Amino acid sequence: MDVSELPTPALLVDAAAFAHNVATMSQRWPGRSLRPHVKAFKSTAMAHELVAAGHRSFCAATPREIMGMLDAGVGDDLLLANESVDAERLGAIARAAREQARVTVAVDSDATVQAAARAGVGSVLVDVCVGMPRCGCDPADAGRLAAVARRVGLEVRGVMGYEGHLMMAEDATKAEQVEQAMALLLAAHDEVGGDIVSGGGTGTWATNTWVTELQAGSYVLMDCDYAKADLPFRQALFVLATVVSVHEGDGGWIVIDAGLKALSVEHGDPQPIGGRTWFVSDEHLTWSPLTGGAWPRVGDKVRVVPSHVDPTVNLHEALQVVRHDEVLDTWPVDLRGWWHRAA
Amino acid sequence: MDVSELPTPALLVDAAAFAHNVATMSQRWPGRSLRPHVKAFKSTAMAHELVAAGHRSFCAATPREIMGMLDAGVGDDLLLANESVDAERLGAIARAAREQARVTVAVDSDATVQAAARAGVGSVLVDVCVGMPRCGCDPADAGRLAAVARRVGLEVRGVMGYEGHLMMAEDATKAEQVEQAMALLLAAHDEVGGDIVSGGGTGTWATNTWVTELQAGSYVLMDCDYAKADLPFRQALFVLATVVSVHEGDGGWIVIDAGLKALSVEHGDPQPIGGRTWFVSDEHLTWSPLTGGAWPRVGDKVRVVPSHVDPTVNLHEALQVVRHDEVLDTWPVDLRGWWHRAA
Repeated sequence: MDVSELPTPALLVDAAAFAHNVATMSQRWPGRSLRPHVKAFKSTAMAHELVAAGHRSFCAATPREIMGMLDAGVGDDLLLANESVDAERLGAIARAAREQARVTVAVDSDATVQAAARAGVGSVLVDVCVGMPRCGCDPADAGRLAAVARRVGLEVRGVMGYEGHLMMAEDATKAEQVEQAMALLLAAHDEVGGDIVSGGGTGTWATNTWVTELQAGSYVLMDCDYAKADLPFRQALFVLATVVSVHEGDGGWIVIDAGLKALSVEHGDPQPIGGRTWFVSDEHLTWSPLTGGAWPRVGDKVRVVPSHVDPTVNLHEALQVVRHDEVLDTWPVDLRGWWHRAA
Repeated sequence: MDVSELPTPALLVDAAAFAHNVATMSQRWPGRSLRPHVKAFKSTAMAHELVAAGHRSFCAATPREIMGMLDAGVGDDLLLANESVDAERLGAIARAAREQARVTVAVDSDATVQAAARAGVGSVLVDVCVGMPRCGCDPADAGRLAAVARRVGLEVRGVMGYEGHLMMAEDATKAEQVEQAMALLLAAHDEVGGDIVSGGGTGTWATNTWVTELQAGSYVLMDCDYAKADLPFRQALFVLATVVSVHEGDGGWIVIDAGLKALSVEHGDPQPIGGRTWFVSDEHLTWSPLTGGAWPRVGDKVRVVPSHVDPTVNLHEALQVVRHDEVLDTWPVDLRGWWHRAA
């Protein structure tokens, strides 16, 4: 099928850019040294491709994502890189994991340790705050938490810490800032023990030389926010839209049928190729051509570069894998939502 | 069921506020003078409640929403208040409409007129630009387009024009600005003919005295953006979240399990009741209590006020209707996405 036959808005994955990104990351972080983050693409079909590239450890942000990976039989070492006290969901993970794959969950408090133990989840990582105010315990509390976890029968596999505040840091000081954040994590690891020091992301793939495994997801598809960060990964994700209204001439504009329900904007405006975005409404994006650019006609198709990969993919039901203008495959975005339904 | 038993994040509708909003709007814009916009809540169950309040005309932003309303048998006069040149989707609407209800589509160009005619859609409104750069023809072109539409066999029912740029305008000049925008629409209507002058929204429900029918959707649920606009509608929409991490004390923070995939942020940060938002990540919101406020514990539930109703509802599978802490009903958000599947 030709791309132009797709109903719009549609989410496209450029097969060549995707293959380049996977190969580039796998060369530096091969096999289990990479723990791809499925929250970025929420598709077990795409995760299958990462298994083919040698990765069998994955991380996820929600119990739903973990359950979907278990159902699909993708990966053999899954990490819920997030805190949960939901007894029902953690219990479901523990039961499903026993038959399928190893599952580990992050803990950063007595309450999350107790929840993991009660649910029957066998192993945990102690999540350590390394500078970004989100989950993760005080580094000084990591050793005590590990001891509590071991006392209630959990295997403590090590630590994790996400230097999310440094993903877009400037180059000059970035390596030094990452080193300082990771020094906190390594000090906590000394107290906690275990084999794993998990952290990092697409933005620190080159500067984080301290972790035993990198948690990265955005590199697979990329967005125009990460494009500013001088990374070797290529834009593989586009939203295909149809021109529905054209107001040609000086001061004129174009409207396409992809808006806030197809493209997230918290990292800035998504940009149509060859154009500049004016604003984004629920189901529309208003833009104009770059200087000297051509005006499209109603019915023409336009590709838009998303500004934030994870929440944009989350808005779509499927990824259309394309090579130039040919649709090669359709991958369901099957890990969305928070309610699990058995496959 | 008690609200605290809901898995989180969950989307709550306060039944009393919802009933107040529906009654308040219906008093000023009764029956067919209101054309509720289903894009705001994307739920045929909620639309059923508006039928019970006397409204049987609805508008929608996507062919999928129209098809879902036809499938559910809600409303007898449906308007696609948006442009489409998708032959397959318009054709499906035309076929389904014949048996169920009257369907009208917006047109603003020769291409959209031809698409409507080819698809067998019987009637159209001429969409007129009244100041916001989005869809809608030049007011001076409206009469010509109406003539083209009639020549190809379409019934032209009138005009529509959305003064979206004035929804949040300041009170002092708002009425005057709305009058100027509607003067453009009424002049176009003189050229176009037909019974309908459709326009307006929640933000101009009081100032737009010019249309024959008001297109409003946000008033039903509201958000903290519209709350600034001095309207008589109450906040009826909340996202229920669970506290997953607490860093108590001076400079401390709280993390809940509702982020960008549960709450949209393009109209500013959503706000937890009793707190102030620091930032929103994919699956987390980091915040701290208002001065003197209590620190919650891990596992506590928190209600968050969304900042933009439409894209927030679009992130959820269901609306949980609550009275205080009791869950009364669950309404599926069944009009999401762009691909139609028969019920």
